[in-house]
Amino acid sequence: MEFTVQQIAQLVSGAVQGDGSLKINMLAKIQDAKSGQIAFLSNPKYEQYIYSTQATAVIVKKDFVSRKDITATLILVDDPYISFTRLLEEYHKLVSFQKTGVEQPSFMDDTASIGQNGYRGAFSYIGSNSRLGNNVKIYPHAYVGDNVIIGDNSIIHPGVKIYAGTKIGNNCVIHSGTVIGSDGFGFAPQEDGSYKTIPQLGNVILEDNVAIGSNTVIDCATLFGDATVIRNGVKLDNLIQVAHNVEIGKNTVIAAQSGISGSTKIGDNCLMAGQVGIAGHITIANNTHLGAQSGVSKSIKEEGQRLMGGPAFEVGSYFRSYAVFKKLPDINYRLKELENKIQIKADSSSSAE
Amino acid sequence: MEFTVQQIAQLVSGAVQGDGSLKINMLAKIQDAKSGQIAFLSNPKYEQYIYSTQATAVIVKKDFVSRKDITATLILVDDPYISFTRLLEEYHKLVSFQKTGVEQPSFMDDTASIGQNGYRGAFSYIGSNSRLGNNVKIYPHAYVGDNVIIGDNSIIHPGVKIYAGTKIGNNCVIHSGTVIGSDGFGFAPQEDGSYKTIPQLGNVILEDNVAIGSNTVIDCATLFGDATVIRNGVKLDNLIQVAHNVEIGKNTVIAAQSGISGSTKIGDNCLMAGQVGIAGHITIANNTHLGAQSGVSKSIKEEGQRLMGGPAFEVGSYFRSYAVFKKLPDINYRLKELENKIQIKADSSSSAE
Amino acid sequence: MEFTVQQIAQLVSGAVQGDGSLKINMLAKIQDAKSGQIAFLSNPKYEQYIYSTQATAVIVKKDFVSRKDITATLILVDDPYISFTRLLEEYHKLVSFQKTGVEQPSFMDDTASIGQNGYRGAFSYIGSNSRLGNNVKIYPHAYVGDNVIIGDNSIIHPGVKIYAGTKIGNNCVIHSGTVIGSDGFGFAPQEDGSYKTIPQLGNVILEDNVAIGSNTVIDCATLFGDATVIRNGVKLDNLIQVAHNVEIGKNTVIAAQSGISGSTKIGDNCLMAGQVGIAGHITIANNTHLGAQSGVSKSIKEEGQRLMGGPAFEVGSYFRSYAVFKKLPDINYRLKELENKIQIKADSSSSAE
Repeated sequence: MEFTVQQIAQLVSGAVQGDGSLKINMLAKIQDAKSGQIAFLSNPKYEQYIYSTQATAVIVKKDFVSRKDITATLILVDDPYISFTRLLEEYHKLVSFQKTGVEQPSFMDDTASIGQNGYRGAFSYIGSNSRLGNNVKIYPHAYVGDNVIIGDNSIIHPGVKIYAGTKIGNNCVIHSGTVIGSDGFGFAPQEDGSYKTIPQLGNVILEDNVAIGSNTVIDCATLFGDATVIRNGVKLDNLIQVAHNVEIGKNTVIAAQSGISGSTKIGDNCLMAGQVGIAGHITIANNTHLGAQSGVSKSIKEEGQRLMGGPAFEVGSYFRSYAVFKKLPDINYRLKELENKIQIKADSSSSAE
Repeated sequence: MEFTVQQIAQLVSGAVQGDGSLKINMLAKIQDAKSGQIAFLSNPKYEQYIYSTQATAVIVKKDFVSRKDITATLILVDDPYISFTRLLEEYHKLVSFQKTGVEQPSFMDDTASIGQNGYRGAFSYIGSNSRLGNNVKIYPHAYVGDNVIIGDNSIIHPGVKIYAGTKIGNNCVIHSGTVIGSDGFGFAPQEDGSYKTIPQLGNVILEDNVAIGSNTVIDCATLFGDATVIRNGVKLDNLIQVAHNVEIGKNTVIAAQSGISGSTKIGDNCLMAGQVGIAGHITIANNTHLGAQSGVSKSIKEEGQRLMGGPAFEVGSYFRSYAVFKKLPDINYRLKELENKIQIKADSSSSAE
Repeated sequence: MEFTVQQIAQLVSGAVQGDGSLKINMLAKIQDAKSGQIAFLSNPKYEQYIYSTQATAVIVKKDFVSRKDITATLILVDDPYISFTRLLEEYHKLVSFQKTGVEQPSFMDDTASIGQNGYRGAFSYIGSNSRLGNNVKIYPHAYVGDNVIIGDNSIIHPGVKIYAGTKIGNNCVIHSGTVIGSDGFGFAPQEDGSYKTIPQLGNVILEDNVAIGSNTVIDCATLFGDATVIRNGVKLDNLIQVAHNVEIGKNTVIAAQSGISGSTKIGDNCLMAGQVGIAGHITIANNTHLGAQSGVSKSIKEEGQRLMGGPAFEVGSYFRSYAVFKKLPDINYRLKELENKIQIKADSSSSAE
C-alpha cells in the first residue's frame, strides 16, 4: 500500500504545497513520523515539530503560516484532525480487506462456496454447504462448520469457531477465539442426582454490522427453528457470555466479561458496562444502562433507566446507599447508643414514677 | 440421515396411520414443518395446525380424534411430547456421532492411537503416546498433547486444547476453545519484588459423563502425581475458571463465568449460578447452592444451604438485607433525626433541671 | 530425558550413597515412586516410606540415619526439599524447551525468521516480516500475525493468537487460547443510534518475563504509535480482560477473570484477586491490593492500600460494614422500635403538657 501525496490530497479535498509525487506508506504522529509517512498538525502547541519532522508530508490548516523552513510537503485542508481521521479510516479499511486469495494448506468442502475478493488463510476450515459472500475474510485457524451462511464484507479473525447452521450478516467483524453456536447449557435433573443432556438443536443468527470481540461465546438456541439472535449494529466486547435463546436488540453495546443467561431478551440501544450479569428468562427495556458488575434478576420494564448494584436499582440511589454502607459500623454503634439512652431514660423515668 | 415413518414409529413404539413408507429427514415444530419433516401435536391449542401442516408425519396422542382431513401420516403414541423428545435425542446423537474418518491435512503422531469409528477433523493434532477410545470425535483445530488418554464416545469440539498428560473419561463433551491442563497460576515472590515461576507438573483428570462449555479453562495440578479432578457427571458452562488442584464433586453444575481458586474442593450435587467466585484452599459441602455473582471466602461445612452475596450467606437473609440496603440513606436520615430529638430532650431536660 | 543418579547428585551438590550409575527418568513422591524415579525425604513423618519405596534414588538430609535396610540409592544433601525443588525446576525447563524443529504442515512466510533451537508445531502460522528469537517455541495452532517480534526463550502455547505488530520480549510464556492485539472496543455513537467503528491502529507490547494464562485477551491501543503495555515480570492468570491502551506496571500479579478497562494505568507490584473490575481512564498506585470481586471506579493515589468492595475501600472496613449489612433487617427493626418509643414519649409528654 503506497500512495502519492497528490492521491491523498484528493481523498481529503486538500491542496498540495510542495512535491505531490512523493510516496506515502504509513500514518504517524508528527513528533514520531519518519520518511515515507504522513502526519498532521492541528493543535498549535505542536507547531515546533513541523519544522523538525522527518515526515514526507503533513496535513495542515489551510490558513497555516510557517515561521521557519519546512522540508515536508504540505496538504492544506479545512480541518486537519478530521482529514487525518478520514485517512485513518481509509487505512484501516485497506488493512482489514488487504488479504485476498487462498493460503495453503486450507480446507474447504467441495459443496461450500465463497464470493469474490475473499481470503482464506492457512489452516482455515469451511464445512459442507456453507455459503460465504463477497469480500469475506477467513483468517488462519478459523473454523466455519457445515451449512453456515456469511454475508458480504464480514471478517472472521484467526481462530474463531462457528458451529454448523450459524447465519452471519453483512459487514460483521468477529475477533479471535470467539465461539458462535456451541451447545446451550441445558441439562434435565434425573432422580439419581445426575443430569441428562437436553439436545440443543437451534442456531445463532447475527444480523448486519455486528462487531464481536475476542474469546466471547454465543450459544445456539435449544429447539429446532429457534435462534439466539444478535440484531443489527450490536457491539459485543471480549469474554462475554450469551446463553441459548437470548435476543440482543439493535445497537446495544455490551462491555467485557458480562453475561446474559438463557432466553433473556435485551432491548435496543442498551449499554452494559463490564462484568454485568443478567438472569435468564427476563426482558430488559430499550435504552437501559447498567453499571459495572451489576446484576439483574427481574425484568426491567421502564425504558431509559440507569441502574447499578446486585440486584440493580437506580444508579444515584445505589451510590447514596453505598455511601451509607461504608458507615454501617458507625450507624450500628450510634443506634446502640440511642437504645442505651432511651433505656436509661425509660429506666430513670420508670424509677421516677 | 433419512428414515421412513415406519422406522420412526418403531423407535417410539407408535402405530402408523397412513403411508409408513414416506421418508423423513428432519424434525420441526408443527406450525413450521415442511415436506420431509416430522412434527408432534401435544397441546390442544395447536390442533388447528395439524389440518394445514406440510409435515410429512405428525406424532399424536393415540386417542386423538381429527375434526377435518389431515394429509400427514400420523404416528399414534401414549405421550407425543415424550416421543418427540426421544426423537430429538436420537437425532442429536446421530448428528453428534455422524462424522467419521480422517480429513486431511491432520496430524497424529505414529505412537498415538484412536479406536473404531473415530473422527479426526482437518488440522486436528494428536501428540505422541496418546490413546483415544472408540467413537471419539476430534474436530478440526483441536489439539491433543502428548500422553493424553480419552475414553470412548467423547467429543472434542473445534479448537479445544488439551495439554500433555490429561485424562478424559467416557461420554465427555468439550466445546470449542476450552483449554484443559494449562499451567496453574503459581509464582513465588522474590526479595526484589519479582516472581519466580513454580513449575506445574501435575495433570487434569475428567471422569465420565463430564460436559464442558466453550472457552472454559481447567489448570493442571502443581505437583507430580497430583491432579485437578472433575468428577463423574459434572457440567461446566462457558468461560469458567478452574484453578490448579481443584476438585469438583460428582453431578455438580456450574454456570458461566464462575471461577474456583486453587486447591478448593467442591462437593457433590452443588449448583452455582453465573459469575460466582470461590476462594482457594477451602471446601464447599455437598448440595450447596450459590446465587449469581456470589463470593465464598471460607469453607461451607453444612450441606444443602442456599447462599448469596459477597461473602455469601443465606439467600433469603441476603435479599432482606439488600432490601434495607436500598433504604440506607433514609435510615441514616432517620437515625440523625432521632439523635437530634434525643439531644433536644436531653438538652431541654437538662435545662429544666 | 534420562540422567544417572550421579549426574543428579552433581546438580544438587549432593553425595551419592549406593549405585550412582543407575538411570533416573522421572520425579515422584516417596510413597508413589516406582523404579527409574527419584523421590525425597524431608519430613520425618514420611520416614517409613523410605524402607519400602520402589524409587531408584531418594534425596535425604546428610545426617539421616536409617533404622532398616534401604534398597534405593541415596543422595545426601543439606536440605532435601530445596534440592528436590531445584530438580523440579530443571525438569520443567527441560520439558518446556524439549520440543525443537518443525512439524508439518506448518506455515511460515518467506519474509519471517526464527532463531536457533526453535520449535514450530504442526498448523502453526507465522506471518510476513515477523522475527522470532532463539529457543522460541510456537506450539500447534498458534497464530503469529505479520510484523510480530518475539524475544528469546519465549513459549507460545497451542492456539494462542497474536495479531500483527505485537512485540513480545524474552522469557515470556503465553498459554492456550490467549489473544493478543485484537481491536480495542471503540465505537463512536451516531445520531441515528448506531455506532461507527473507531479504527484501532496501535499495538501491544509485552516486556520480558511476562507470563499469561489461558483464554486471556489483551487489546491493541487505538492510535498509531501507541501501545497497550505489559511491563517486565507481570503475571496474568486465565480469562482476564485487558482493554486498549492499558498499562500494567512491573511485577503486578492479576488473578483470573479480572478486567481492566481502556486507558487505565496499573502501578508496579499490585496484586488483584479474581473477578476484579477496574474502570477506564484511571490510575492505580503501586502496591495496591484488591480483594476478590472488587470494583474500582476512581483513581487510587495512595500506595500500598488493601481494598475491597464495589467501589472498593479499605478491606477491614469493608468486612466490618458487611458484618452490619447482614444485620440490616434487625437494624431497620430496632430503628423503628426506637422511633415508636420516642413518638410514644413525645405523644405522652405532649398530652401531658
